[in-house]
Amino acid sequence: MHEVHVGEDLRGRNEEIAGENRKILREKGIVSFNLMSAPGAGKTSLLVSTIPLLRERSRIAVIEGDLQTSRDAERIAALGIEVFQIETGGVCHLDAAMVHSALHALDLDSIDMLFIENVGNLVCPAEFDLGEDARVMLLSVTEGDDKPKKYPLMFTESRLLLLNKIDLLPHVEFDLEKAKGEALDINPKLEIREISCKTGKGIEEWIGWIERFRETSGGS
Amino acid sequence: MHEVHVGEDLRGRNEEIAGENRKILREKGIVSFNLMSAPGAGKTSLLVSTIPLLRERSRIAVIEGDLQTSRDAERIAALGIEVFQIETGGVCHLDAAMVHSALHALDLDSIDMLFIENVGNLVCPAEFDLGEDARVMLLSVTEGDDKPKKYPLMFTESRLLLLNKIDLLPHVEFDLEKAKGEALDINPKLEIREISCKTGKGIEEWIGWIERFRETSGGS
Repeated sequence: MHEVHVGEDLRGRNEEIAGENRKILREKGIVSFNLMSAPGAGKTSLLVSTIPLLRERSRIAVIEGDLQTSRDAERIAALGIEVFQIETGGVCHLDAAMVHSALHALDLDSIDMLFIENVGNLVCPAEFDLGEDARVMLLSVTEGDDKPKKYPLMFTESRLLLLNKIDLLPHVEFDLEKAKGEALDINPKLEIREISCKTGKGIEEWIGWIERFRETSGGS
Repeated sequence: MHEVHVGEDLRGRNEEIAGENRKILREKGIVSFNLMSAPGAGKTSLLVSTIPLLRERSRIAVIEGDLQTSRDAERIAALGIEVFQIETGGVCHLDAAMVHSALHALDLDSIDMLFIENVGNLVCPAEFDLGEDARVMLLSVTEGDDKPKKYPLMFTESRLLLLNKIDLLPHVEFDLEKAKGEALDINPKLEIREISCKTGKGIEEWIGWIERFRETSGGS
């Protein structure tokens, strides 16, 4: 059973490296976001929608986590920004050490905002602090409104929940108010926004959230 | 990193218990299926669509794996069949020992078909043999046609791939032929069916697959 065998030592070591990552990022004035979701919820599509709007004001880099393939990294690299690809080789989440290696490889003096796209998995990524400033999770409405109570840890650990693919609401059974209510039962501080990467709905509000977060968190 | 710390000992122990489970199930003439997918791909909905059609000819039980909550188990129990609920308490997959406990609790003399619904996760469940006769994975078309190469192990380990939610094809960008081609590149023996639990399309063919599998695998 994974949870048991990760063990306190490994967790302690992850926390330690996450702390180093956080220190490096703060010293460089870089605000950082860890994007987490189930497979196919739209993390890469969100970045593809977001980066062109943010890059006027921000110098952005992306760390892309994938089990296999560099497909997502290629989609991001096509935007002309710096991307560091982590192929985990089957490991189901990023950890702080993987991100630490990426931080050594990126030109941190030339960026002020970092997105870390985690492996598509609604369970394990939530257990690993990467040293990010905020965790942002995506839940696609096609996944069902019962997910908060079934996968509570990720909702507990996230600062912002993006309900994605709301363009598909007419075609699926998904009760927005139920999903929001259950997410807030688990984490009353969770902020929630509705978006569609396909139609662009809510993307401006998400950009606004990022900008406000940066101002209040003291990032550059 | 989970994969490393599962370790050979733990894997060996899992294989051993999976072998015991397989022996028990064969002695009782029970054919068994391990259903795997990302969260929200429709495993429970598939069972809810399937069981009423199968129960005329088969005596069915279900083992339901969930991190938290018994919601899925309640949906299945409402059909009036025997359900054993495993709450993993945060562990991101079922293992053979969990299923072994369930086999002790179920009345194995009164059933001839067992469905095991794994935890919603496209990564870790594929690493754990439960002693089942066949692994069946669901991929919802809302998850994207790039998933086979990004999450190859589950495609390698499955005998049947059900492409679910095909009623949503007009509303999403999903290239069926690309997804099938890439899945077959990974596992040339993989059988593939298209289904919609919502409209019922393909459910008869899936039932037919189950019946043929049972006949050819020598189950009762």
